[in-house]
Amino acid sequence: MEIYCDNAATTALDPEVLNAMIPYLTNQYGNPSSSHALGQKAREAVEESRHTVASLLNASPNDIFFTSGATEANNIALSGAIRTYDVSHAVTSRLEHKAVLQTLGQYSQEGELDVSFVKIDSKGNIDFEYLENLLKFNAQSIVSLMHVNNEIGNLIDLKALSALVKYYDGILHSDTTQSIGKYRIDLQELDIDYLVGSSHKFHGPKGVGFIYINKYKKVKPLIYGGAQERGTRGGTENVAGIVGLAKALEVSYRDLEKNHNHISYLKSFFIELLTNGPIKNIRFNGESFSEDKSSYSIVNVAFPHLKHGGSLLDKLAQLEIYVSGGSACSNLTQSGSHVLKNLKVHLDRDNVRFSFSRHNTPQEIRHVVKVLNQIYQEDEGIAKSKLLEVA
Amino acid sequence: MEIYCDNAATTALDPEVLNAMIPYLTNQYGNPSSSHALGQKAREAVEESRHTVASLLNASPNDIFFTSGATEANNIALSGAIRTYDVSHAVTSRLEHKAVLQTLGQYSQEGELDVSFVKIDSKGNIDFEYLENLLKFNAQSIVSLMHVNNEIGNLIDLKALSALVKYYDGILHSDTTQSIGKYRIDLQELDIDYLVGSSHKFHGPKGVGFIYINKYKKVKPLIYGGAQERGTRGGTENVAGIVGLAKALEVSYRDLEKNHNHISYLKSFFIELLTNGPIKNIRFNGESFSEDKSSYSIVNVAFPHLKHGGSLLDKLAQLEIYVSGGSACSNLTQSGSHVLKNLKVHLDRDNVRFSFSRHNTPQEIRHVVKVLNQIYQEDEGIAKSKLLEVA
Ligand SMILES: Cc1ncc(COP(=O)(O)O)c(C=O)c1O
Ligand SMILES: Cc1ncc(COP(=O)(O)O)c(C=O)c1O
Repeated sequence: MEIYCDNAATTALDPEVLNAMIPYLTNQYGNPSSSHALGQKAREAVEESRHTVASLLNASPNDIFFTSGATEANNIALSGAIRTYDVSHAVTSRLEHKAVLQTLGQYSQEGELDVSFVKIDSKGNIDFEYLENLLKFNAQSIVSLMHVNNEIGNLIDLKALSALVKYYDGILHSDTTQSIGKYRIDLQELDIDYLVGSSHKFHGPKGVGFIYINKYKKVKPLIYGGAQERGTRGGTENVAGIVGLAKALEVSYRDLEKNHNHISYLKSFFIELLTNGPIKNIRFNGESFSEDKSSYSIVNVAFPHLKHGGSLLDKLAQLEIYVSGGSACSNLTQSGSHVLKNLKVHLDRDNVRFSFSRHNTPQEIRHVVKVLNQIYQEDEGIAKSKLLEVA
Repeated sequence: MEIYCDNAATTALDPEVLNAMIPYLTNQYGNPSSSHALGQKAREAVEESRHTVASLLNASPNDIFFTSGATEANNIALSGAIRTYDVSHAVTSRLEHKAVLQTLGQYSQEGELDVSFVKIDSKGNIDFEYLENLLKFNAQSIVSLMHVNNEIGNLIDLKALSALVKYYDGILHSDTTQSIGKYRIDLQELDIDYLVGSSHKFHGPKGVGFIYINKYKKVKPLIYGGAQERGTRGGTENVAGIVGLAKALEVSYRDLEKNHNHISYLKSFFIELLTNGPIKNIRFNGESFSEDKSSYSIVNVAFPHLKHGGSLLDKLAQLEIYVSGGSACSNLTQSGSHVLKNLKVHLDRDNVRFSFSRHNTPQEIRHVVKVLNQIYQEDEGIAKSKLLEVA
């Protein structure tokens, strides 16, 4: 039985979303920039999608720009703002996604930007006082802090953050990749300059995302070209992808409360089974144990090392339970999770991120915990028999 | 009867390509960066696609990087090279795509780059002597000249260009968006630093493309993020799109000679019917009349204005013949074609680009010409009857 609990890495495409995309992968193949009927139908599909996304976020369609994903969108926000407003100071956290850290890092390396990192505690909570001090002494900073951390699930209070940043006249970007489609965001209420989303994180297709740009803000393009996306982002539009993104967001918001309840329940059920189970010494990374300080879909568990050796992640994968160490991208670099490293705790453990979606079931959770328990029971057994051998 | 002759703007997705994509739009939804089996299957699909593209171009898979399209790829090539090699002089032509012109323009505007434009004649041919002089006096220039012009179809001799640029130690980028999948390109034979492709121009999906980067060249990323595309381009891969791109290229190359013959025939048949037909005073823009100096799929015709007024393009569109004025993107800006403007000829005419694909048939060509003839006959009739009215 394959069980997928790696929904922070990516999610299954919703069949309803694929259905919405199919016309644009078959007979509706026009280029939205073509003036004839086939082109104009594609244009309408793109603009309708923009309306959908805008209205779900309570923004204006003029503020929504489609991109190839959240990585590009984060780059547009940061690189765009820095170049447009000659920003010389940025505030971020060491727990941000590489798309943010590396973009800022590049400007810093080239001597064009000073980057300050907010203080965080051992659970990854941001020290707001420290942040305020940074802002006080650095007028017109750009602040880039994510809404939901992709590894430990920590939630930030965007409203409080926005109030603080705006008080000090800063520019606020938030990487909302892990929260779009999971939390309601009202852009009439929230004073934020840029936020981003990636469709494949909420059951849409890969390779398409968006950026919201506050109407009082601009950005120089990152990708120059045609007049697409009103000159902000050149390139023939990924029509099917854009339609899929909008549909996926619509479906997510349509059932948001139901899914929230369902997924929250899975998370707390999982935690309950784990903490009351036979595996000793289980800890949780970041705030992922907390119900209100972390996302309802992510839990990052610090398991004790297997005595018999071997990685828990690999064992789970062999048993067809698909989870993740750090983030998906940190798997790739083999250098481990920069997020956990920066928390400086539980590094001597087997850290596993479980991330759930509306497709997971309580049965699956039960099975995952059963498998985990078995792995540790066997490990105890082997460890004991090894001890006996040696003796 | 809808007839699509706007294949330089975009092409219909090949059903065989969609079939190849479907698994990655349904159950194979893993993130290629995830270490578990579902992720690794996606990784394999991406790497197999890279091998396919590389082997079709006789390049190494290490030299192929997937992007969101040719616009991004052009930006990566130019912006990447300029920033990596501190290039201070670029050579290009006023007939290039906006993705090239605006990217270079931006660096020029910021005072970081001098841009020289090669001389072109009234048919858009590049003055190679002039180019040589530019190179002689500007060591280590970056040269960006397209293989096939998207509006007038003009073909450049990439081998001769490469020999010249390399003799003067220049960096060579070619926007090959309109030729990839239509002409064989052997990257072992051709000494070029960067070239690009966009899947939707050769019956693949929109929103995915690639850049070839010569192994002796590097680029600083345009989009910073995870370690995807070996650190050259961050962002979760558009797996289905990448698989579709590779399949579309495979299909294009599989039937290349057959399609070349078929489409060439359509073009010459079209020209023959037109030039021997009743519409007087037909001219051709650029070299698009020529068999060897222009792409076999594009012909740009300068029709006389309709006496009765109205745009020929609109009339054709009403009669369900889908063609284009300038390029698709220039439709969007309403400012008209910068390519035709720079040729400084036939601007007082109704310029229409017809671009064919393997899906077009001789019957369609016949129909298009019939409709064109009717439009001009009616126009003559109305014009005459108006003259009579006035008289
Ligand atoms: C010559 C040329 N270069 C670049 C592009 C850009 O391709 P895309 O819009 O797919 O990024 C196009 C097509 O629009 C083109 O015809
Ligand atoms: C917090 C966060 N930001 C940005 C991204 C980048 O998204 P994408 O890879 O789709 O561009 C991700 C996911 O990979 C993420 O989790």
